[in-house]
Amino acid sequence: MPALDGHTATLLMHCRDQRGLVAGVSEFLARHGGNIVYLDQHVDTAEGVFFMRVEWELTGFGLAPEAIGPAFDEALGERFGIRWRLHLSEEWPRMAVFVSRLPHCLYDLLSRWQSGEWRVSIPVIVSNHEDLRPVAEQFGVPFHVFPVTAGNKAEQEARELELLQEMEVEFVVLARYMQVVTPTLIDAFPERIINIHHSFLPAFAGARPYHAAHARGVKIIGATSHYVTEELDAGPIIEQDVTTISHRDSVEELVRKGRDLEKLVLARAVWAHLQRKTLVYRNRTVVFD
Amino acid sequence: MPALDGHTATLLMHCRDQRGLVAGVSEFLARHGGNIVYLDQHVDTAEGVFFMRVEWELTGFGLAPEAIGPAFDEALGERFGIRWRLHLSEEWPRMAVFVSRLPHCLYDLLSRWQSGEWRVSIPVIVSNHEDLRPVAEQFGVPFHVFPVTAGNKAEQEARELELLQEMEVEFVVLARYMQVVTPTLIDAFPERIINIHHSFLPAFAGARPYHAAHARGVKIIGATSHYVTEELDAGPIIEQDVTTISHRDSVEELVRKGRDLEKLVLARAVWAHLQRKTLVYRNRTVVFD
Amino acid sequence: MPALDGHTATLLMHCRDQRGLVAGVSEFLARHGGNIVYLDQHVDTAEGVFFMRVEWELTGFGLAPEAIGPAFDEALGERFGIRWRLHLSEEWPRMAVFVSRLPHCLYDLLSRWQSGEWRVSIPVIVSNHEDLRPVAEQFGVPFHVFPVTAGNKAEQEARELELLQEMEVEFVVLARYMQVVTPTLIDAFPERIINIHHSFLPAFAGARPYHAAHARGVKIIGATSHYVTEELDAGPIIEQDVTTISHRDSVEELVRKGRDLEKLVLARAVWAHLQRKTLVYRNRTVVFD
Amino acid sequence: MPALDGHTATLLMHCRDQRGLVAGVSEFLARHGGNIVYLDQHVDTAEGVFFMRVEWELTGFGLAPEAIGPAFDEALGERFGIRWRLHLSEEWPRMAVFVSRLPHCLYDLLSRWQSGEWRVSIPVIVSNHEDLRPVAEQFGVPFHVFPVTAGNKAEQEARELELLQEMEVEFVVLARYMQVVTPTLIDAFPERIINIHHSFLPAFAGARPYHAAHARGVKIIGATSHYVTEELDAGPIIEQDVTTISHRDSVEELVRKGRDLEKLVLARAVWAHLQRKTLVYRNRTVVFD
Repeated sequence: MPALDGHTATLLMHCRDQRGLVAGVSEFLARHGGNIVYLDQHVDTAEGVFFMRVEWELTGFGLAPEAIGPAFDEALGERFGIRWRLHLSEEWPRMAVFVSRLPHCLYDLLSRWQSGEWRVSIPVIVSNHEDLRPVAEQFGVPFHVFPVTAGNKAEQEARELELLQEMEVEFVVLARYMQVVTPTLIDAFPERIINIHHSFLPAFAGARPYHAAHARGVKIIGATSHYVTEELDAGPIIEQDVTTISHRDSVEELVRKGRDLEKLVLARAVWAHLQRKTLVYRNRTVVFD
Repeated sequence: MPALDGHTATLLMHCRDQRGLVAGVSEFLARHGGNIVYLDQHVDTAEGVFFMRVEWELTGFGLAPEAIGPAFDEALGERFGIRWRLHLSEEWPRMAVFVSRLPHCLYDLLSRWQSGEWRVSIPVIVSNHEDLRPVAEQFGVPFHVFPVTAGNKAEQEARELELLQEMEVEFVVLARYMQVVTPTLIDAFPERIINIHHSFLPAFAGARPYHAAHARGVKIIGATSHYVTEELDAGPIIEQDVTTISHRDSVEELVRKGRDLEKLVLARAVWAHLQRKTLVYRNRTVVFD
Repeated sequence: MPALDGHTATLLMHCRDQRGLVAGVSEFLARHGGNIVYLDQHVDTAEGVFFMRVEWELTGFGLAPEAIGPAFDEALGERFGIRWRLHLSEEWPRMAVFVSRLPHCLYDLLSRWQSGEWRVSIPVIVSNHEDLRPVAEQFGVPFHVFPVTAGNKAEQEARELELLQEMEVEFVVLARYMQVVTPTLIDAFPERIINIHHSFLPAFAGARPYHAAHARGVKIIGATSHYVTEELDAGPIIEQDVTTISHRDSVEELVRKGRDLEKLVLARAVWAHLQRKTLVYRNRTVVFD
Repeated sequence: MPALDGHTATLLMHCRDQRGLVAGVSEFLARHGGNIVYLDQHVDTAEGVFFMRVEWELTGFGLAPEAIGPAFDEALGERFGIRWRLHLSEEWPRMAVFVSRLPHCLYDLLSRWQSGEWRVSIPVIVSNHEDLRPVAEQFGVPFHVFPVTAGNKAEQEARELELLQEMEVEFVVLARYMQVVTPTLIDAFPERIINIHHSFLPAFAGARPYHAAHARGVKIIGATSHYVTEELDAGPIIEQDVTTISHRDSVEELVRKGRDLEKLVLARAVWAHLQRKTLVYRNRTVVFD
């Protein structure tokens, strides 16, 4: 399998905590000649759930990629009741980006993609406004506008979904997309829509968080990236960060400082997702280092 | 006035923003031979309010401490409608500490006081439990217990107030005091009761914030120090800080990490208050550097 | 002067600390009808130096822009020995960017400029390599390559200087430019060349700081933005920030995490410079909030 | 073994990286009925070294504590060449504290000990000055003074070592102890003397780091806790943290802000050591979460 040289496989798994799980998984990989390059596990003792991420080199590994899943299920998966996902490093994820009018997160995502910092494909950018078309064109990424009104929202989302499926999109990033996403999209991309919210959730959920933060007189502002669920601003949190502010900062200054936070927090969350380091369980995330 | 050698006076003031305020104040001090060692001002352009803190050396200053206020009012205060407070560095504030059962903030406050890190007096510690009496005694500070029940709260707070007044207490620090303070105390110490809340308010207001933070799956926890007002956990914020957490952290770990935050944030808030660097306006604070 | 509507003027000044400075400056502006929108001052008591930044609205101000300097000098500058610079918000600074092969800081600077986040012009990008020409072209900024060898460095820098002067460049940003800049450029742009160094200086000055940080086993890495002086990595620091790392992080991970720090720290430093909030004195900076 | 109820054992180990290590260790514990409550491992791929920390419940474990080591060596230790240490949670470490004149770290350590926050014993405090005796006495800990002069240093350290051995001290914390410790002590406590240095090492090693930081004009200051080795300020780093400063901060302000950092960073390092989460390899540390 010369095509696999330098490539790795990653198993993300969780199940009820039981004795022998780490021993079983590591023994399975050892038996097939897999050299582990990363292993991290976590036991949620309160819930009694076991989580694990293990990554190993495919060079010299005794199973073809398509044979790994069935062999793992036969050896361990069924016995322990493990729910798992397998990812191969040679397959680059396909990511769609949704934007409205604010460009800072879009620039940042496109720069990381174009410069080769991230191993990702961006087949399409979706927007409800024309404003950012020049940015998309400058980076050479197709840009589709679906204007949303009170009356056509369901219809437009259905068309967006069709486009995403046609483009074989794996996951979606809402890069300051100012529309509430409905179950039409959420159900098609469960735990695969990443949003950036401009506050340290759960503080200042909803609209205009910088105005709310200024009115409350907080001394820190933040940003939160989370997977989108049907409950607005309440999905499992992937990444958060904050910065200090003072009485000197007007709302405009909060917006300005917040922009940098939003870019950074969203980029870290997308990176964790791309690295296959995130697992969701009961509206909370395990994010391996 | 040899007693004033090395001492300073500080004026904290605010009024409607008008032209000539900085010029007027600095000219007033210059005229009396005051050497300014600190001047900071802030204009809230949205509210149209001017805030200023100015500190100057009393050595060589042409006015006796008791004459400063009247002279300032005559020169500027009445004309500009300035509300001001004068503080003299030679007068050490008298601080009461309220505690319940958790000792970490109390140890920290007492250590800073006893070691001379802070120029403050602590004439009394008040508690609703006996638990921390040994700590108070070890540091040589009088400890008074007022057990609070559903039926006797008003009466006990009245007795506490009496004690604080007898002790000539200037301000009160609630160092993880697990009782809601009522207007009996709040009205007697407006903007002079400092509380520490174990979350980054307004997130997780109310009881058991670490449990709530764990359940929500946030990636940062925080602590907030604020002046106490009648609306619970909603008073003007003096200081906030946060620390990162991960899926590995149990509620117990959050409590452990949070303790260090609480100590630090409370200590910074008390320090700002002691330095006369805080001003409250419409439920927000100006905290000068 | 209708063209001045909404515009402001900013005076940055420093001199020996003397009584009456704040009063004098604020009185000067009040006399000409200047409405102060920002005033901050700092006294370095150890050095006995006074620093001030004051910004006021030009609408309604009684002096034409070209008359401000002479009037200020006559009223105060000569008497107090004030060194000052005047900046007008209507004049956008012209910034040159120097790069080598690493694109992340360049993308970030160009995105902030193109999106209108910064009021700045970028008339030219200079490089010693061809690699980043496509990025410059995509953003529509002229890109000039001056390959540097051991033998032609002085000559190439002279040509670069000529280009910068022809383009009327006000200040230069070294955005991971991997060449030591010599006095040819430094003397032409004193305190006007901003560099980003990929460590928390003075730790790990010189080349390959991430390798050095990994070898030393530090638990934090950082980035430092500073004005360039003849002594390498020793110029006055404008901005620094850090991020935590652990034993899990390889050198490659440090490089990856560091990239985001470099972008952010450089952007904050350029912003402070653009806002005219930086003053240099004896190899240290005053950076007003 | 009823005495073991609720207690755990922890194995800290490292060896050359080989296949089957995780499988082997987890299988060994499973075979004896050990329920793992914590497992973390790290592979330094550059050095080819494997590190692991595993903690399991002793209740129901099939080996008596004194039999664990021999059984582990027979099953795995010798085959894989594992160097390991075994710790039992029921055995509280005995910690000596060395101080000079600055009290803030001492107060913090004693408060954490006395309040039961840490499971540690403090049988003795050693100092080269009398100053902090009242603090030690107030907390009820024996205080021994060994005045050090140029002529008697070796002799005094020998006496200190004798005292530590007599007190069965396991590890030593230098809580702002202003003397260089020599091999007499270092060799007796290898990787078991923890120091706090008041800078973000390797910046500002040596004496008076706050003065050096102020002179250099850095925008952040830090503190570093490390194991003491013969090369001054160069031992393996356990914990670092920083705080931002500005041009407003005098050296005295740096000292004041630094104190809080020193307390916090030292406490975190001691906590990691107490939790048996630190491993040293080639002058670097692995600090498990």
